[in-house]
Amino acid sequence: MRGMAKTTGLAALLGTGVCMLAGSAAAQEAAGVPQETQFIFNTLSFLVHGFLVMWMAAGFAMLEAGLVRKRSVGTQLLKNIAIYAVAGILFYLVGCNLMYDGVDGGFMGSFAVWGPDDSAAAAGDLSAGYSASSDWFFQMVFVATAASIVSGAMAERVLIWPFLIFIAVLTGLLYPITGAWQWGGGWLSEIGFSDFAGSTLVHSVGGWAALAGVILLGARKGKYGPNGVVHPMLGSSLPLATIGTFILWLGWFGFNGGSQLALGSAADAIGISNIYVKTNLAAAGGVLAAMILTQLLYKKIDLTFVLNGAIAGLVSITAEPLAPSPGAAVLIGAVGGMIVVVTVPLLDKLRIDDVVGAIPAHLFAGIWGTMAVPLTNPDTAFGSQLIGVVAVGAFVFVASLIVWGILKATVGIRLSDEAEEAGIDQAELGMEAYPEFGPSMAN
Amino acid sequence: MRGMAKTTGLAALLGTGVCMLAGSAAAQEAAGVPQETQFIFNTLSFLVHGFLVMWMAAGFAMLEAGLVRKRSVGTQLLKNIAIYAVAGILFYLVGCNLMYDGVDGGFMGSFAVWGPDDSAAAAGDLSAGYSASSDWFFQMVFVATAASIVSGAMAERVLIWPFLIFIAVLTGLLYPITGAWQWGGGWLSEIGFSDFAGSTLVHSVGGWAALAGVILLGARKGKYGPNGVVHPMLGSSLPLATIGTFILWLGWFGFNGGSQLALGSAADAIGISNIYVKTNLAAAGGVLAAMILTQLLYKKIDLTFVLNGAIAGLVSITAEPLAPSPGAAVLIGAVGGMIVVVTVPLLDKLRIDDVVGAIPAHLFAGIWGTMAVPLTNPDTAFGSQLIGVVAVGAFVFVASLIVWGILKATVGIRLSDEAEEAGIDQAELGMEAYPEFGPSMAN
Amino acid sequence: MRGMAKTTGLAALLGTGVCMLAGSAAAQEAAGVPQETQFIFNTLSFLVHGFLVMWMAAGFAMLEAGLVRKRSVGTQLLKNIAIYAVAGILFYLVGCNLMYDGVDGGFMGSFAVWGPDDSAAAAGDLSAGYSASSDWFFQMVFVATAASIVSGAMAERVLIWPFLIFIAVLTGLLYPITGAWQWGGGWLSEIGFSDFAGSTLVHSVGGWAALAGVILLGARKGKYGPNGVVHPMLGSSLPLATIGTFILWLGWFGFNGGSQLALGSAADAIGISNIYVKTNLAAAGGVLAAMILTQLLYKKIDLTFVLNGAIAGLVSITAEPLAPSPGAAVLIGAVGGMIVVVTVPLLDKLRIDDVVGAIPAHLFAGIWGTMAVPLTNPDTAFGSQLIGVVAVGAFVFVASLIVWGILKATVGIRLSDEAEEAGIDQAELGMEAYPEFGPSMAN
Repeated sequence: MRGMAKTTGLAALLGTGVCMLAGSAAAQEAAGVPQETQFIFNTLSFLVHGFLVMWMAAGFAMLEAGLVRKRSVGTQLLKNIAIYAVAGILFYLVGCNLMYDGVDGGFMGSFAVWGPDDSAAAAGDLSAGYSASSDWFFQMVFVATAASIVSGAMAERVLIWPFLIFIAVLTGLLYPITGAWQWGGGWLSEIGFSDFAGSTLVHSVGGWAALAGVILLGARKGKYGPNGVVHPMLGSSLPLATIGTFILWLGWFGFNGGSQLALGSAADAIGISNIYVKTNLAAAGGVLAAMILTQLLYKKIDLTFVLNGAIAGLVSITAEPLAPSPGAAVLIGAVGGMIVVVTVPLLDKLRIDDVVGAIPAHLFAGIWGTMAVPLTNPDTAFGSQLIGVVAVGAFVFVASLIVWGILKATVGIRLSDEAEEAGIDQAELGMEAYPEFGPSMAN
Repeated sequence: MRGMAKTTGLAALLGTGVCMLAGSAAAQEAAGVPQETQFIFNTLSFLVHGFLVMWMAAGFAMLEAGLVRKRSVGTQLLKNIAIYAVAGILFYLVGCNLMYDGVDGGFMGSFAVWGPDDSAAAAGDLSAGYSASSDWFFQMVFVATAASIVSGAMAERVLIWPFLIFIAVLTGLLYPITGAWQWGGGWLSEIGFSDFAGSTLVHSVGGWAALAGVILLGARKGKYGPNGVVHPMLGSSLPLATIGTFILWLGWFGFNGGSQLALGSAADAIGISNIYVKTNLAAAGGVLAAMILTQLLYKKIDLTFVLNGAIAGLVSITAEPLAPSPGAAVLIGAVGGMIVVVTVPLLDKLRIDDVVGAIPAHLFAGIWGTMAVPLTNPDTAFGSQLIGVVAVGAFVFVASLIVWGILKATVGIRLSDEAEEAGIDQAELGMEAYPEFGPSMAN
Repeated sequence: MRGMAKTTGLAALLGTGVCMLAGSAAAQEAAGVPQETQFIFNTLSFLVHGFLVMWMAAGFAMLEAGLVRKRSVGTQLLKNIAIYAVAGILFYLVGCNLMYDGVDGGFMGSFAVWGPDDSAAAAGDLSAGYSASSDWFFQMVFVATAASIVSGAMAERVLIWPFLIFIAVLTGLLYPITGAWQWGGGWLSEIGFSDFAGSTLVHSVGGWAALAGVILLGARKGKYGPNGVVHPMLGSSLPLATIGTFILWLGWFGFNGGSQLALGSAADAIGISNIYVKTNLAAAGGVLAAMILTQLLYKKIDLTFVLNGAIAGLVSITAEPLAPSPGAAVLIGAVGGMIVVVTVPLLDKLRIDDVVGAIPAHLFAGIWGTMAVPLTNPDTAFGSQLIGVVAVGAFVFVASLIVWGILKATVGIRLSDEAEEAGIDQAELGMEAYPEFGPSMAN
């Protein structure tokens, strides 16, 4: 997660193992700041940026609640708060050590419950550079982000409990394994792959898992008619979708900024500041690109594309928010926004029913962002970027297909036709999201 | 509010008097960090964690707006912003010095208007360890939290102005008095009571005040029929209730994390990091417990219970977010979540009409959290915990009964029957929350 | 933006040129804090306070979405996210250097694209005191705030693309020019004008631009009948308006607190703490004043006035959040709240259709706040305050009239009558904000 602009053997090492490594070079970097002061700054960065990323869970919940139909809003809300809870517990029980403990060039870490261990620091040895608990908190909210991506794509027809079983597998096993390859110090980090804050390791992972799920789950009833007809199913509330997007934008300062992993030196403070600037400009680029492109294509601005354009801009800059100039950041984000506008209809042509546009915004923009890294960061190469994109994609997509397949073959993953007709909230929650606002339409 | 894991005579002292004590040992704790740097860190922690807790006011507003009927949404919003305003002004005019100024083992402080006093620090004596104004800000947002709890329980039928008079008394007198007993250095702190961030002193105080009010106010018309029939009155908007819950969850990192009261040493940074981790896991435990229990009891997941489960998990860990292991934090929160599921129907049996479930989530889970402290913190004892719970409860409940009783006997506290029939927004505001979304139903 | 309580030649200098000045006295202020630690603290303050101000963009979006009619909600949301994107890109392309680069007592800086320049700091010369990129981020979110004010006043009938052209001019030229006069070290700063965080330079600038626009645009069809009849057009969602207001309130701690421009000394930490306290109390004063006044005038509390009262309270204290006592802060905010209650009907008498009350809350309260500075800050004078208010107002109002006039004469700025009848969302977006919630009423 550390910027590859500083890539050396040391920095590559630094970028890995943050959850478990007992010591890091961070402590020696800033000779001008006393060691304990550095320790506090680094820890504070994890906490502040971590709570911003935690807030993204609310952002996904609102975005998705706004983009599903009224009849499905309650279930979508439930899934999002449940995802955040499940991800936290699974990353504690399994994920963290699987991702960070003793990977050492390999494929995964160890199966062991995580426990806070700041005993060395408490005893006066501050060489770790930050509190291990603050680091766990920051890594945990990342896992939750990846998991949130899945729920939007599969909305309105997937059963809650099987869905949550998949989320448990994703956050406890799949995400930590691919995470181990790079951030845990595994084989991918050794070949020079670069993904600062997770265009691939977070957003594409969520996107691949969603794609596998959507394919096995099938489209919502009535979404696709014969002869390629697509019936639009409009989202219930643009204000919710918009506040969700603003929340994600705000949270992304934590997502990318905190991925500097340190604040204990002027160099780190400058790095984080640059990340804030470029992250913001990329999102702005995504917004403008989606506005202009939908105006040109459809003669009207499409707000849902603009919102997804902002998100795609953010995803696109996530792999490398440090090296690009401000202008390059705008362009990188703008391409992300254009990708969304172009690929959402493509998915519909393929009858892949991604309810909220998560696959274009997180998977396709994530691939773009990862492949764009060498455009601005000379220490990286297209070849190793491609290997990372393909390897992570193949693993997560296939593993997700298998897990979703087993769930489908055993407990089932989809509502009955009657239940879907009545609406998932009726079937799964027995309540409506807006009981006093008139009946849901069968649009 | 300081963690009792470090309890010594010194730490007990430290945990008190934060609003007024001119000096504290905090300054000496971290020899490795220069004194002025410590001063900045400690102050920054109050400010950052304070603005997170301030944000909880919005959380309560949204949670309650979502859980009342459409006809009452506007009034609920008004009450919540008014509560936050009144609490701030009253804590300035009366509360702060009543809670912290010269309590010294006794029952309350002095009646005096608070004024910012950082003159010693400005003159170069930084032994106070932090800015007094930052501390006031942090304490003030806590008072507002306690007050917010009351409005949810009494929603849809209490008159605005008498309600706000009660809030003024609660935030200017009642909360500061019980606060003085413990955090102000009063008698309760001397017998070894332990309540890190306020399961009892904030959440139960709010809950007891709400319970007294609800009893004197009576249930909403039509809520309870003959023969124990309970007519459900569904909340108007689950998205609002959900974003409210996410806001509270986010704010709780400030609530518990900031209650460490210092960030000027590695030990404090580690403490806060641990608090974040345990706070999050307890909320996750509350979510999962409420999901599983409502699935088992009702064959459906109930989202409103899940939201209150998250809150109850957070309330439960608030008395001791440092000492429990991560696993214990999950369990403490899970019990909180289960308490909500079990006790909400109980209150209905008793015809106590708590509109949003505030009494189970804040009072009952607050008692549980306080009594659970000795399970993980060996420096505490069930006896002194019980004394604190009972003393605070008796004082706040009786005093609230008296204040509500006087208001009821004089200005009245309840809408007329006709006004309640028409809806409180019509009667008190003369406006609707959603004027274009169809008529409110008389459900 | 630095508090004039500390006004000396040095401090006046300090208060200017924050975007570009290579060095500042901030670095020397806190001898007790090592220079690199100061650098990190100052940078962190810009980042944390900056993301709070960024969050205000969501606040304006929600406030305005809640206060327009259902038929216009989607467009209002689109405008707000577009404003934030446009403001960021324009302040990068033009605004920042126009505002800060080499103004030196004059009228404006240079036309040059901004680029991050922390090379001196990276090379070990930390005398700048903070990261230039963090400063840019903080200044950029301020520009966006000023621009957001315009969209609310002109809602429901202004065309999106001409509106965004105006926003580009405002954020790239007009705001930076008046900003240069004071914060860039221009002529206004030399005559002793004092505007700590921008009652005039941000809020009034936005308000003047809005007033010019509204006058040229005309009122919504049907708003004003013959004989002075005013047809109320109720906002669609009070919950959205309320969460918007809470977001703004939260963001204002960043807005005013961050305008201290430093956190690297105990004195700065104390200053920011005092700003938080006074900012909060002024908002509380605005809330209570609006509640009491609407109760007296109309026999009902008006929630929309209360929300605008909070905002007006915040605007009022923005010119001087340091010098007032807490009690004075309450009063300054209360006057702001009263101004809103009194002037909203006045604008309607003048048939100036300001949809959300932005002109009273931001312009009138901004003038009040600026003129009130000498009441509590003895280093300021009414004369220079008046010069600043008039000069900024004249320039922005006239320039805005010209820009809006050109747009009106060329591309047009207003929906056709038929399109307005159908609703702006239908015309400009081709979608509805709430497609399943029944038809929009033609109220």
